[in-house]
Amino acid sequence: MVVYLVGAGPGDPDLITLKAVKVLKNADVVIYDRLANPEILEYAEKAKLIYVGKKAGEHYKTQDEINQILIDQGKKHEEVVRLKGGDPFVFGRGGEEMLALHQEGIPVEMVPGVTSAIGAPTSVGLPLTHRGVATSLTIVTGHEDPTKKERQVKWDFKADTLVILMGVGRLEENVKEIMKNRDPKTPVCVIENGTLADQRVITGTLEDVSKKDIKSPALIIVGHVVDIFKEIKPMKTQEVLNHERL
Amino acid sequence: MVVYLVGAGPGDPDLITLKAVKVLKNADVVIYDRLANPEILEYAEKAKLIYVGKKAGEHYKTQDEINQILIDQGKKHEEVVRLKGGDPFVFGRGGEEMLALHQEGIPVEMVPGVTSAIGAPTSVGLPLTHRGVATSLTIVTGHEDPTKKERQVKWDFKADTLVILMGVGRLEENVKEIMKNRDPKTPVCVIENGTLADQRVITGTLEDVSKKDIKSPALIIVGHVVDIFKEIKPMKTQEVLNHERL
Repeated sequence: MVVYLVGAGPGDPDLITLKAVKVLKNADVVIYDRLANPEILEYAEKAKLIYVGKKAGEHYKTQDEINQILIDQGKKHEEVVRLKGGDPFVFGRGGEEMLALHQEGIPVEMVPGVTSAIGAPTSVGLPLTHRGVATSLTIVTGHEDPTKKERQVKWDFKADTLVILMGVGRLEENVKEIMKNRDPKTPVCVIENGTLADQRVITGTLEDVSKKDIKSPALIIVGHVVDIFKEIKPMKTQEVLNHERL
Repeated sequence: MVVYLVGAGPGDPDLITLKAVKVLKNADVVIYDRLANPEILEYAEKAKLIYVGKKAGEHYKTQDEINQILIDQGKKHEEVVRLKGGDPFVFGRGGEEMLALHQEGIPVEMVPGVTSAIGAPTSVGLPLTHRGVATSLTIVTGHEDPTKKERQVKWDFKADTLVILMGVGRLEENVKEIMKNRDPKTPVCVIENGTLADQRVITGTLEDVSKKDIKSPALIIVGHVVDIFKEIKPMKTQEVLNHERL
């Protein structure tokens, strides 16, 4: 009896880890979200597949319902895999699932994955840290729980590079907050559908980025490391072929 | 002619990506650092192996020398792999190598990896973000370039969770700086040799962590997410068996 909480990586099915493939192959049950790439499920040769993904805006299953499914399946089967995009502990609510399973005495094993926050920029040649330019990076969600009374994110992060996940819906208001502490000319890079075939990369600045047509899911990178990315064009990669300027 | 800048992941050889394995199998040359796990080199079945690692404290090769080796090999061979621990763009100096190759007209492809900053905490069951506890995380190097006149890192990061890479050498002075902005009782977790068989996990607080015997390489995690990790003991994982309290 064990439940593996497994990161599926940023989207490209080749960016999954060997360990994730191994646990998928042995799984009796795989419980998965709307994944960046469903090809990954093909490794789960003998598993029953249970979809618990969320539709945009609304929950398909509540987190409590998902936790209960994990508990029920964990008690019934030898090897259960809970597959999540990116890394299960970077805005993946994996911590809540781990605690729920732990409270029921079900052993949990964690399998980290490449988070899209890092994997997508690295893939296109955008270094999140760079000597003399950025010695720190902050990863933050742009989409806070709307039921909270007070907004927890203050947007006055001091790190050189800022990476915003789920940042499209509130881009305009968040960028306004960021400009209270950063130059409006600070370069910004948006990566839509990172590491996938339909990836699109858009560059701009804090003051103009929210005027552009950007679609979810997208990652927003703020900081002078974006200038390094601009320097290296044209590269061989598919990603950079899809690059367009604001 | 292409040079792949490839992340080898945090240490556990099963935490490498499928893409990294594929490019290693086809490589004519592999240029590598002191890797967390040299088993990974076994995938490079037909490649010539060139070691350019750094010894503790001193550079074995300078970065300029490494760049020159990449350029020379890139010009001579069809497929060259530059293998780096973690992700090549998270304090890996991959950006400098990419630019050096680009300036010589050598195509570069990036292969992201699981950074130890995220992979090691996730593996032990320590969520870097958690609903109601942490909606942002900052990754920073504890070991700034000592030749710099002014210290660039100010340690007043506002993110809920702080992850310090290469943080052992200057732990005491950095922790003093962090305590100017955070409660000295803030929980801290140290992960030595993350994801490897000799991994050791130590918990404490900002005010007592620098008194402990901690050996490099180690990752330092600061923030209330550490309390969640403490809640889940005992887990099944090997890692948690090696957990000891301050």
